[in-house]
Amino acid sequence: MADKKQKQKRRRPDSDDESELPFKNTLKPDRVILETLKKLLLATTTASSSTSKPLTLSDLNLAATCREVTDLSLSSVQSTIETLILQVTHSILSGNGFGFQVPSRASSNQLYVPELDRIVLKDKATLRPFAHMSSVRKTTITTKILALIHQLSLKSIHVTKRDLFYTDVKLFQDQTQSDAVLDDVACMLGCTRSSLNVIASEKGVVVGRLIFSDNGDMIDCTKMGMGGKAIPPNIDRVGDMKSDALFILLVEKDAAYIRLAEDRFYNRFPCIIVTAKGQPDVATRLFLRKMKIELKLPVLALVDSDPYGLKILSVYGCGSKNMSYDSSNLTTPDIKWLGIRPSDLDKYKIPEQCRLPMTEQDIKTGKDLLEEDFVKKNPGWVEELNLMVKTKQKAEIQALSTFGFQYLSEVYLPLKLQQKDWL
Amino acid sequence: MADKKQKQKRRRPDSDDESELPFKNTLKPDRVILETLKKLLLATTTASSSTSKPLTLSDLNLAATCREVTDLSLSSVQSTIETLILQVTHSILSGNGFGFQVPSRASSNQLYVPELDRIVLKDKATLRPFAHMSSVRKTTITTKILALIHQLSLKSIHVTKRDLFYTDVKLFQDQTQSDAVLDDVACMLGCTRSSLNVIASEKGVVVGRLIFSDNGDMIDCTKMGMGGKAIPPNIDRVGDMKSDALFILLVEKDAAYIRLAEDRFYNRFPCIIVTAKGQPDVATRLFLRKMKIELKLPVLALVDSDPYGLKILSVYGCGSKNMSYDSSNLTTPDIKWLGIRPSDLDKYKIPEQCRLPMTEQDIKTGKDLLEEDFVKKNPGWVEELNLMVKTKQKAEIQALSTFGFQYLSEVYLPLKLQQKDWL
Repeated sequence: MADKKQKQKRRRPDSDDESELPFKNTLKPDRVILETLKKLLLATTTASSSTSKPLTLSDLNLAATCREVTDLSLSSVQSTIETLILQVTHSILSGNGFGFQVPSRASSNQLYVPELDRIVLKDKATLRPFAHMSSVRKTTITTKILALIHQLSLKSIHVTKRDLFYTDVKLFQDQTQSDAVLDDVACMLGCTRSSLNVIASEKGVVVGRLIFSDNGDMIDCTKMGMGGKAIPPNIDRVGDMKSDALFILLVEKDAAYIRLAEDRFYNRFPCIIVTAKGQPDVATRLFLRKMKIELKLPVLALVDSDPYGLKILSVYGCGSKNMSYDSSNLTTPDIKWLGIRPSDLDKYKIPEQCRLPMTEQDIKTGKDLLEEDFVKKNPGWVEELNLMVKTKQKAEIQALSTFGFQYLSEVYLPLKLQQKDWL
Repeated sequence: MADKKQKQKRRRPDSDDESELPFKNTLKPDRVILETLKKLLLATTTASSSTSKPLTLSDLNLAATCREVTDLSLSSVQSTIETLILQVTHSILSGNGFGFQVPSRASSNQLYVPELDRIVLKDKATLRPFAHMSSVRKTTITTKILALIHQLSLKSIHVTKRDLFYTDVKLFQDQTQSDAVLDDVACMLGCTRSSLNVIASEKGVVVGRLIFSDNGDMIDCTKMGMGGKAIPPNIDRVGDMKSDALFILLVEKDAAYIRLAEDRFYNRFPCIIVTAKGQPDVATRLFLRKMKIELKLPVLALVDSDPYGLKILSVYGCGSKNMSYDSSNLTTPDIKWLGIRPSDLDKYKIPEQCRLPMTEQDIKTGKDLLEEDFVKKNPGWVEELNLMVKTKQKAEIQALSTFGFQYLSEVYLPLKLQQKDWL
């Protein structure tokens, strides 16, 4: 009993002798850690400028066989739609009928390109003829969506996918149908979905050393209190990014974000803290990429130590299959896996009761990830993931609270930075 | 066919002749509508100042039989815990054993008070003795939570419920147990959960004519672009609210919020627009209440025309059963139901295909709501809800997009305001 009490004391957050906390004593002064971060920043900036023009499909001689989309201005979207409809009209007048060439977004038409480190779409396309029983509805839906997008480009307003659906419920029947055709239309026009002015609900927040303009208003993210600034749903109205941060800290979950925001971690180690509160949404992915490109900052990720944490990291880094046609605009290259990594569980002596057993599904997801190209190309990640699958243990970021609520911001993260402990 | 085409044209959002839109022609100039709103504001302010001190349990002679909590300062929380623990120590030393008196939060201990228009907790409490097989664990958990809260009050930091749970996973076993005891502890100490510095993940956003301070930073919500300001999770660090708005527009869903934010609806009709993006979270409820109390503005609600829309309205207005002990701090009195109301479906000629049939569960929820006191006391609401249950039809706010994406901000809402069409 006495022995057990002793043990409990060691990880009691209210322990007076905080030096007992794992690694608290190995922390160097902040200026030493800041030097480390400055070197990381320099390396990132140099890498960005040496490969000033990032690799493209053309550089890899893939332009003819792969398809990518770009950001188009509203007037380009408008004229592209008009050109497309003129072509269709010509086709009808010349007796070739009414139909659209629609790029395939099926799994079989997707390709991971290691040099680009992301998934792209191959060039297969299928004809969607109006005069065919099986495609008459889909062709009608496609035409309707084109008309609606044309209208948005004229009015210069943004709408949600739900708004689109409600313009003609009878035709679309359910929202998955208008959503799917919306992605088809983006591929057909060769532009990103955000160029179409159709936005998804935003849920991300950002706080820290960043100033940017949102729809004309200047936002200073050091002056956003603890709540932070909601990430705007329309990236095309975001601009003028300025920052004196040394890195971007990408956080999977809200709770860790709140801890870091309240402790104003970004003032001790100049950084920008961003989270999508779980699954990355399109707005947060676009925002992260824009920060990375414009500010040339290293990105360090803090996620749960489970297969979904790594999966989330991969969506930010390499894109999702569903929107692979837009991967060049949605992905942020070279994100480092800072933590919580499977090897941290033992290293930081996270007590057994704060670790969770992986379910069968977790283990399967972990094994599937080991087969993914974006994991394979990073030997450090493979090693960590193998360890996770072997020990069958996972842990949330919050597990660190066992050493005190501020262990994350006061010991774990500073030490990680000091030791350059990212992969 | 020709006839059908004609019909379709009437509700085509890209129709050139927008005067065809329902009621577009009955809209008066903005200055007329603004006059209406100023009168509403005056009435609200007068009502607030005439009943300068809102009714309390004492006024109703219920103080002895009902229990309510108040906001306590950190130092009061600290001293209350210390007093409680001293009492327990005395009890042990005098041979009466170790235990806590814990207020019951069961349904049978809850009471709707019409005069207050909210649910309160009755005074039943039960002893939670340590020396009893059935309660030894819960007593231990209670003691642990008290110790953790005491620590938070000393350090003056905020944590999430998840953080609390992870301080002792072995003891708490799962998070529902630490969460439940946390509410017990708030009742025992007689303070709100936010006084305990335990916060929930925030998801609400606010935009429009509001200036406030968040953790010391001044936030101007007219300068938050389209994304708006994330509502802070810790209401105790929110203050200095200033506004020239005429009303608060409470919006159920994100999509409608985005439309109004992009159109800067708050500049045409000075208002504050707030949404919790679905189910109201504690942070948004506290924020709405604080705005209402400090700024004395009328609150108009825009929710889906279905039982859940009304349910959401009721949570903002009268509280949820789960946190009834805190209802006086979480609820916002006198919220008006602006729309979408069941009678709007016919009035605004929302096409059949944009209405959805109610499921059996929807109808049951609707009928249950008709039995609730907070609905019964408002004859207008009863009438609307009866209509919904009778027609068995529901509709989302987005259904208005059938008349064009901006019909909501340009016709529907202005007309509602002009006609004082709220209940």
